[in-house]
Amino acid sequence: MTEEQHLSDTDDLQERLQEVENLLARHKLVEMLVHNQDMPRHELVEELVHKQNLNELCFKLDNMHPADVAYVLEALPLEERLLVWDLVRAERDGEILLEVSDAVRETLIDAMERHELVAATESLDTDELADLVPDLPQEVVEDVFQALPPEEQAQLRAAISYPEGTVGALMDFDMVTVREDVTLEVVLRYLRRFDELPDHTDKIFVVDRDERLLGLLPLESLLINDPDTDVRQVMKKDMVRFQPEDKSEEAAQAFERYDLVSAPVVDTENRVVGRLTLVTVVDFIREESEAEQLANAGLREEEDLFASVWDSVKNRWAWLAVNLVTAFIASRVIGVFETSIEKLVALAALMPIVAGIGGNSGNQTVTMIVRAIAMGQVKPDATRRLLKKELGVALINGVLWGGLLGTLAWWLYESISLGLVMTAAMTLNLLLAAFAGVGIPMLRQRLGGDPAIGGSVMITALTDSGGFFIFLGLATLFLL
Amino acid sequence: MTEEQHLSDTDDLQERLQEVENLLARHKLVEMLVHNQDMPRHELVEELVHKQNLNELCFKLDNMHPADVAYVLEALPLEERLLVWDLVRAERDGEILLEVSDAVRETLIDAMERHELVAATESLDTDELADLVPDLPQEVVEDVFQALPPEEQAQLRAAISYPEGTVGALMDFDMVTVREDVTLEVVLRYLRRFDELPDHTDKIFVVDRDERLLGLLPLESLLINDPDTDVRQVMKKDMVRFQPEDKSEEAAQAFERYDLVSAPVVDTENRVVGRLTLVTVVDFIREESEAEQLANAGLREEEDLFASVWDSVKNRWAWLAVNLVTAFIASRVIGVFETSIEKLVALAALMPIVAGIGGNSGNQTVTMIVRAIAMGQVKPDATRRLLKKELGVALINGVLWGGLLGTLAWWLYESISLGLVMTAAMTLNLLLAAFAGVGIPMLRQRLGGDPAIGGSVMITALTDSGGFFIFLGLATLFLL
Repeated sequence: MTEEQHLSDTDDLQERLQEVENLLARHKLVEMLVHNQDMPRHELVEELVHKQNLNELCFKLDNMHPADVAYVLEALPLEERLLVWDLVRAERDGEILLEVSDAVRETLIDAMERHELVAATESLDTDELADLVPDLPQEVVEDVFQALPPEEQAQLRAAISYPEGTVGALMDFDMVTVREDVTLEVVLRYLRRFDELPDHTDKIFVVDRDERLLGLLPLESLLINDPDTDVRQVMKKDMVRFQPEDKSEEAAQAFERYDLVSAPVVDTENRVVGRLTLVTVVDFIREESEAEQLANAGLREEEDLFASVWDSVKNRWAWLAVNLVTAFIASRVIGVFETSIEKLVALAALMPIVAGIGGNSGNQTVTMIVRAIAMGQVKPDATRRLLKKELGVALINGVLWGGLLGTLAWWLYESISLGLVMTAAMTLNLLLAAFAGVGIPMLRQRLGGDPAIGGSVMITALTDSGGFFIFLGLATLFLL
Repeated sequence: MTEEQHLSDTDDLQERLQEVENLLARHKLVEMLVHNQDMPRHELVEELVHKQNLNELCFKLDNMHPADVAYVLEALPLEERLLVWDLVRAERDGEILLEVSDAVRETLIDAMERHELVAATESLDTDELADLVPDLPQEVVEDVFQALPPEEQAQLRAAISYPEGTVGALMDFDMVTVREDVTLEVVLRYLRRFDELPDHTDKIFVVDRDERLLGLLPLESLLINDPDTDVRQVMKKDMVRFQPEDKSEEAAQAFERYDLVSAPVVDTENRVVGRLTLVTVVDFIREESEAEQLANAGLREEEDLFASVWDSVKNRWAWLAVNLVTAFIASRVIGVFETSIEKLVALAALMPIVAGIGGNSGNQTVTMIVRAIAMGQVKPDATRRLLKKELGVALINGVLWGGLLGTLAWWLYESISLGLVMTAAMTLNLLLAAFAGVGIPMLRQRLGGDPAIGGSVMITALTDSGGFFIFLGLATLFLL
């Protein structure tokens, strides 16, 4: 990417961050000198250098894109972050607050006065305000509401009323609407009165007298058609619409499937209430995939890299607690077979292999099934067919890898029956993993839950305890 | 989402799939009757019903969006998939091949004749062809090349020359360019000669005589400005440009950061060579996040849900093999301490807890660090600071959870020294996990590798073997 003015790519961002840090370091140095030395003749000079550094930093920040300022704020430790935040011009506070991550936003808001926060929100659209409101202190929210004109108050109230994960929570209110019975010339004259169109306007909504959606008029059709044409003749009636209650995930899939850039949001009576843009949908997709990654590792939310150790502990403890419980159960399963292990200590060395491979194989199955469900390709009645396939895969893997491990066990401990038990236990645990890997997400789907949540933990818990039980049980039956 | 003509949401898609399956089932039933019965008086009737079903299916498919046909094809078992594929009109083959997943695309291409494949490509743009070419048989690729006009041959050659993961592989060639020294009126007249603009055109590229990029002209500015204005006066010079060699991931981040809908791609001499659109970027983001999910579970690629058991085994074996090796090493570590376990069998029951919690905690750390690196917020020299924080978290977790588990072990086995060893081993293994969780991705980054790959496997291998070694080692030293 080629840099141009205030837009920059990752490398440039790293450089910018470095510049900011250098200026901060110089500023600190001067501050130290000022505080520690008592030589008055130097003070004036230092004060000047000091000011100059901060001025330079201010200037740099003014020329950076809000997203880039957000990046710098996120990459700085708390103290320096707040220093830079103070240097940002007040009228830019709002747009930058929108860009930073939730964890960092919290630290910035905590450092702001009530009147500063109210001022920061003044430059924002209602849909942007709606994103910010949940993080603002109650009294600031009240002030913000009172400062809005009645129409926007209603919009804001509507926007924050939709739960996260719905189209209503993602939509904005920046749409241009026209009537179907006018000519394109009239529309063109109407548009020429705008200073600018709402961001990412690729189409205009055609509505009737009651704001009911009749069709879509792409900007393109304003440009390629004769201005004397009626809107009615060129508008597209074949369109994707959403309702505020629709799931964001489904809207995102529709945007991808039909290559949309923007789409109207209508109420149950087909009146236009908002607009959904691809730019918002992309943010949603990215956030969702990040939340999934974090959840996979048992992190509840994104951690500010400079969060305190204690905040990090709180973010991670729930997952560790769950794992502790499942590990403890598995440990008790082993406890039951302690006499067997005492008699044949090789069992202790071999049992983690049986449990581990089962867990990995089960996770592969769960991942496959959850993905297929998410893409809408698995109907609840497909369970039997999928189960057959996964059990087949497990059987082959069990015989292949179990056979290999069995041979190794035979060779290591010079016992052919130990080898056979090893092979049998691995095969059975892989079959258990396949069964649970298909069953758990399919069951969750049928019961109306989210098949993606917790499947991996449950599988691992099952294949650990199950693997130990199967292996030690078979060994007790056949070897002792 | 409200359905309208051939656009449909997930529920509707499920219904459509059901309809197709019903028609297929009726078709099969009739075929069975025709083949198994020898009653001539029935044949004619059946033949008619048969034809009618297929006609109805054809009609349905004709009225579906290519993405929806792709969905149906992906959700059908091989035999029925190919039957439906035969019913799709030949001129739609190309666009549908673009939409299906790689695994399914392979099955469809395998079933097509050379001339059918060449015909299918005729409706495609060069950038779409470039996506398809890697999956086509060599002789078909040659035919396709020869059928193209020289300019498009050059474009196609350029497009397939860029490796996956670069902007060049994602860009298209559908851009509209104008000169800076004309009025908007001239541009408007020029555009009116188009039947339609390239998909997702939100801006026009302003170039000089040598195709060098001078600025961008948003469609919006054609609409809101006086037609007598010069392009030069309203074009935006402040822009994000890419080069074909830039990484797709960085381009995607820039699209998100700066809310772009399309952006020009230029060569080293600033000549416009292509265009990148948000719609393509979204596909890239989604594919990348899916590839990551699959890789996390050790799946090499997306599996066709109806792939044979054998294909699935091949897709999954590499990961299981790696895990087998690491599990075997951990097992050998236990083997070293077999005498200790024989003397104190409680060790066998407790050791999986130490290993398991270490693995989970290490994975949390790796996930955090990899994400921070991917977002460009971690410089290689931040290792020490991150290490300090993660070791702090590990210490607290070790004392808390290790203390709890130690107490449980004390209570279960009535040995306070066993409890103390348990607590110490858990704390040490968590510290090891934190150390490796920060160290492995940071080291990979410094060595120029991808920090995201394999970190989780390495951590788990380390905390398993390490956990067993620490726990059994401490026990041997202090308890026996």
